[in-house]
Amino acid sequence: MKISGRNKLEATVKEVVKGAVMAKVVMDYKGSELVAAITVDSVEDLNLAPGDKVTALVKATEMMVLK
Amino acid sequence: MKISGRNKLEATVKEVVKGAVMAKVVMDYKGSELVAAITVDSVEDLNLAPGDKVTALVKATEMMVLK
Amino acid sequence: MKISGRNKLEATVKEVVKGAVMAKVVMDYKGSELVAAITVDSVEDLNLAPGDKVTALVKATEMMVLK
Amino acid sequence: MKISGRNKLEATVKEVVKGAVMAKVVMDYKGSELVAAITVDSVEDLNLAPGDKVTALVKATEMMVLK
Amino acid sequence: MKISGRNKLEATVKEVVKGAVMAKVVMDYKGSELVAAITVDSVEDLNLAPGDKVTALVKATEMMVLK
Amino acid sequence: MKISGRNKLEATVKEVVKGAVMAKVVMDYKGSELVAAITVDSVEDLNLAPGDKVTALVKATEMMVLK
Repeated sequence: MKISGRNKLEATVKEVVKGAVMAKVVMDYKGSELVAAITVDSVEDLNLAPGDKVTALVKATEMMVLK
Repeated sequence: MKISGRNKLEATVKEVVKGAVMAKVVMDYKGSELVAAITVDSVEDLNLAPGDKVTALVKATEMMVLK
Repeated sequence: MKISGRNKLEATVKEVVKGAVMAKVVMDYKGSELVAAITVDSVEDLNLAPGDKVTALVKATEMMVLK
Repeated sequence: MKISGRNKLEATVKEVVKGAVMAKVVMDYKGSELVAAITVDSVEDLNLAPGDKVTALVKATEMMVLK
Repeated sequence: MKISGRNKLEATVKEVVKGAVMAKVVMDYKGSELVAAITVDSVEDLNLAPGDKVTALVKATEMMVLK
Repeated sequence: MKISGRNKLEATVKEVVKGAVMAKVVMDYKGSELVAAITVDSVEDLNLAPGDKVTALVKATEMMVLK
């Protein structure tokens, strides 16, 4: 299966914090920190935990550029 | 100035392709490719060109996780 | 592989229109029309064409509700 | 009034879960489950409850395609 | 009908530029410029033209804060 | 530093509400109310509080138009 989303960052989960509806997933990506805010349902569906090898996915239209 | 967006990746512009309204900015981040779809106006406002040192910015709510 | 994105609709591609940077992918989901605006690169990477069986993916934070 | 957002899915609310800031709205759309993460303020403003007939709205630029 | 999206700004269309797939809609809101990138299909569906009174809509999860 | 995001709205913070993961930042923008849903981490990183002069940032691809 291929995904249209252009940005696929192979990362490692460092921390998972769950709220009532949303959860924060902190990842390490080649020395940079990534943070994804996803639903708690997703965290449980993927059974996300520190140490997991994951891919952070970002659609090209969601990425800004600063210069 | 600080930005609430949690994901900031320091990258180098590799390619800029302009359409009528939208442009594609391809960047290199430590050997991985990033692609942002932004307006042509933004490309011209930032005067983006290959070789530019930039920061790719992504809001935490725009990042998915695959496992 | 599991995807954190909560909304996955199995659809059939009806039409693909390519611009210089962005492309429009029109799909049918049980008689309703779906429209995705993705990069031309993605269309070519997935080799999208009418008749293809695909899955439309939407993150929960990107969905509004009208009532 | 017309809305530029291209994807309008007529759905029925199945469940509403409120956190402190964000809420989850689970809907049924022609047999598929939809999940929207919206603010609690929105849930209260629309007075969303199970059984409500609603429209899930998604901008074309927010929809990915998997194949 | 109510919309869950929290940010609604009443604006006036100043300029519409169409590409093959995407269009740029420039608006004036009390002397400030707003820019929306929507599909050409939407521009035609709403028959958008300079002088139109419109509402710019943004979901709360799509808004960042700079300080 | 310049930001590709086209919509930069100079606003004043009116209220900040923190949940476990997400926070709501209510702002005044020329008499209209803006609401941003950002992470609690961002609120703390920017030390956001009522009365702060801030800029609300929205990418053009995240703005819809109603007419």
